[in-house]
Amino acid sequence: MNVVSQLKKFFEPKSVAIFGVSRRTGKEAFNILDNLLSYGYRGKIYPINPNASEILGIKTYPDIQAVPEQCDLAVLNLPRQIISKVVKECAGNGIDSIVIVTQGFGDADDEEGKKLQSELDEIIKGNNVRILGPNSLGIANAFVNFSSSFVKQDMERIPVGLICQTGVFMVGYSFAKFVGKGLDLGNGSDIDMADGLQYFEQDDDIKVVALHIEGMKDGRKFLEAAKKITGKKPVVALKTGKSEQAARAAQSHTGSMAGKDKMWDVGLKQSGIIRVDDIDEFADTVKAFYTLPLMKGNRIAVASYTGGLGIMGIDACNKHGLEIGKLSQPTLKRLEEFYPSWQDVGNPADIWPAIMVERKASLPEIEEMAVDTLLSDPGIDGILCVFGEFLPPGQWRSLTPMIERITNAHPDKPLIFHIYGSFADEAKINIEKTGKSLAFTSVDRAIRALGHLYDYSEFCARH
Amino acid sequence: MNVVSQLKKFFEPKSVAIFGVSRRTGKEAFNILDNLLSYGYRGKIYPINPNASEILGIKTYPDIQAVPEQCDLAVLNLPRQIISKVVKECAGNGIDSIVIVTQGFGDADDEEGKKLQSELDEIIKGNNVRILGPNSLGIANAFVNFSSSFVKQDMERIPVGLICQTGVFMVGYSFAKFVGKGLDLGNGSDIDMADGLQYFEQDDDIKVVALHIEGMKDGRKFLEAAKKITGKKPVVALKTGKSEQAARAAQSHTGSMAGKDKMWDVGLKQSGIIRVDDIDEFADTVKAFYTLPLMKGNRIAVASYTGGLGIMGIDACNKHGLEIGKLSQPTLKRLEEFYPSWQDVGNPADIWPAIMVERKASLPEIEEMAVDTLLSDPGIDGILCVFGEFLPPGQWRSLTPMIERITNAHPDKPLIFHIYGSFADEAKINIEKTGKSLAFTSVDRAIRALGHLYDYSEFCARH
Repeated sequence: MNVVSQLKKFFEPKSVAIFGVSRRTGKEAFNILDNLLSYGYRGKIYPINPNASEILGIKTYPDIQAVPEQCDLAVLNLPRQIISKVVKECAGNGIDSIVIVTQGFGDADDEEGKKLQSELDEIIKGNNVRILGPNSLGIANAFVNFSSSFVKQDMERIPVGLICQTGVFMVGYSFAKFVGKGLDLGNGSDIDMADGLQYFEQDDDIKVVALHIEGMKDGRKFLEAAKKITGKKPVVALKTGKSEQAARAAQSHTGSMAGKDKMWDVGLKQSGIIRVDDIDEFADTVKAFYTLPLMKGNRIAVASYTGGLGIMGIDACNKHGLEIGKLSQPTLKRLEEFYPSWQDVGNPADIWPAIMVERKASLPEIEEMAVDTLLSDPGIDGILCVFGEFLPPGQWRSLTPMIERITNAHPDKPLIFHIYGSFADEAKINIEKTGKSLAFTSVDRAIRALGHLYDYSEFCARH
Repeated sequence: MNVVSQLKKFFEPKSVAIFGVSRRTGKEAFNILDNLLSYGYRGKIYPINPNASEILGIKTYPDIQAVPEQCDLAVLNLPRQIISKVVKECAGNGIDSIVIVTQGFGDADDEEGKKLQSELDEIIKGNNVRILGPNSLGIANAFVNFSSSFVKQDMERIPVGLICQTGVFMVGYSFAKFVGKGLDLGNGSDIDMADGLQYFEQDDDIKVVALHIEGMKDGRKFLEAAKKITGKKPVVALKTGKSEQAARAAQSHTGSMAGKDKMWDVGLKQSGIIRVDDIDEFADTVKAFYTLPLMKGNRIAVASYTGGLGIMGIDACNKHGLEIGKLSQPTLKRLEEFYPSWQDVGNPADIWPAIMVERKASLPEIEEMAVDTLLSDPGIDGILCVFGEFLPPGQWRSLTPMIERITNAHPDKPLIFHIYGSFADEAKINIEKTGKSLAFTSVDRAIRALGHLYDYSEFCARH
């Protein structure tokens, strides 16, 4: 079976057998069945447990032979000693897609772990069966409300496909989700990052691919697969294990080689993958790609309440390979109408004197005039608004109507914000609810995200 | 009068005259008097307005001569043309401390602005008067509930003294406050950063000084003042205007020279100032200095739910000049009791198999055992905990009791967190409410903060 059809059974199983389901529920239970029942998954669930006839109201089966149909997927959360035996039983019953949750194989520090891993490798070779793991949360797919994770997931149908080597990114953060569909490789004994890339390449639900890479066995296969997808959708990678010490730890963590960081840098770049340095940048970049249009050129406008943060915008452009765009005469003229006579009009556009001194229009009107005017300039490819939010929600203006109008009028130019003031958090929520704009907690992070949008657009133009 | 006594009149005025108070209240009013009345300031307030007898219930005066006492401070928010005249009137009435809020002097782009600035400079020279500004929000002091800012401030008595060249940091962010006491230099015509440093050096309310620097006239005076304070309290600086283009913009913004960035780098370092690169790092570092003990050595422990983020901890230590500490035999032995047999004990300490596989204690017990054991090791100087928060507040454990016990038992070693999961935000709030620990949104940011704590402790040991 080709890898796409095979992975479809993992991502969209019509039926799943779960081995090692306990009766524990509630906190610290980490019960796969308990979680799965909460998502609204519509496939068939067959919990396997020889010591119970029913768990959480679901009929259980003593073993796989007792299950009345051939399941698309099996999830194994059993002691490591019996994993090989159960994998064989599954294969014997026609199941060819298996998630192994259990730790203590290639990731273990004892001889027994290495031995069990070898055994498992032999079984994979000798049978028509594909393994995800061991040491894996498995699969998540918000589009069919399915997850094999023992940590409960927040299911949201974002167009992001994640492939990772730690469960952290499957689970995500309150401030950052990485999973519309997710694939936790764990040890990567069999299904690997290249397989995942092939799957997401053809998956129309997925617009951005997020990778967490510690290391891998077959770098060449990965880079080949990457080269095929990066011209079609952006692939963002957080490659960890940079230092030698970290690389050694990565080898122990997933049993795979991390390799020299410099080589990774070159390889990722050549294959068109966008490399990020940290969790913050990972989250920002992934979100930027699925929320904003690409930057067609590198010329930024900054509309700011304050010259001070405008200057930081220039610094950030300098750092992230963008330019502060030169404004055309009509743009300058239009802005000038609102400025006090003593102020030169320029970019960054410091709109505070217009708001505070001249007051020819209300604060929201001046904001919108400035943003619309700047984005109408053919010499501008995207805009950062540096505004303040000083009054609590309800008392101040909502930015939603302005964002709707501006993004409709300028659909090809990203509009983003950096908000200061005591109510910056609420403003960020208000802005991001539109699904058309983002707010960043620093000027540097904001411009960095635009830089990635520009770099990728450049890459696509060259390919 | 020496600078400390002089600035005391700015920071703790017993009476203040406010020029240019309008009747506007509510949104977009930016009314200094309106704000000041809301803080609970206990000094005398004299609004000056020749066209009203009362504003917001406060008796107003037609001019400074009519005010029945000699005020400690005057705040001028008037058209730029009449500022010089009013400064002279104030000086003539014995007022020697004046904030000029008005824009359009050295910061303006027209000849008139330069002329008005020169006039003002002459008046300062010829009179016994000190000016803060022009183009300044002025002064804030949460310890006496006073602020001259026309943007309403969130008053909180944190031990941070801010000196800045943009009002942004006076106002702050929902996620970051920089003002226990704040000094917005604006154009810095007279009172400058060195003056502010001298004041905060002797101010026992202030434990950390935060600087936002665009440029200045007298770098030597500044560095001399810095050298005196940095041995006593940490000084954290965000120096912007790095690129040439940004430096030119800075000159226009505040009328001061930004200078070559490389020279700034050397100068700041030599005087013991901690330089930060962005708003995020500025906020993290200031908060770390007033919340956490210093790192006495450079040896970190990481206690993590996940090997994957442990590896990122190693990368971050490498980047920020710290080391993953080598654990002693007793530490290893104690941890081993909770680990499955197949797992080697080490640092980073991956505690997930102990929680998930061995289950010799509950999750919170294993967490606390690991943190206490690691911090008891004489080879460890501070700890980063990488934990998950998967259930909503109320259902999961509060980290408060653990933080209280651990920080009491190990008062000299910083304890910080990086939390992942769908409820990371709530966990961060819970952690930071203790006032004894912090949570960071990425592993890199967490370790970077510890790096600054170590660097400063090293600096103090050498001086």
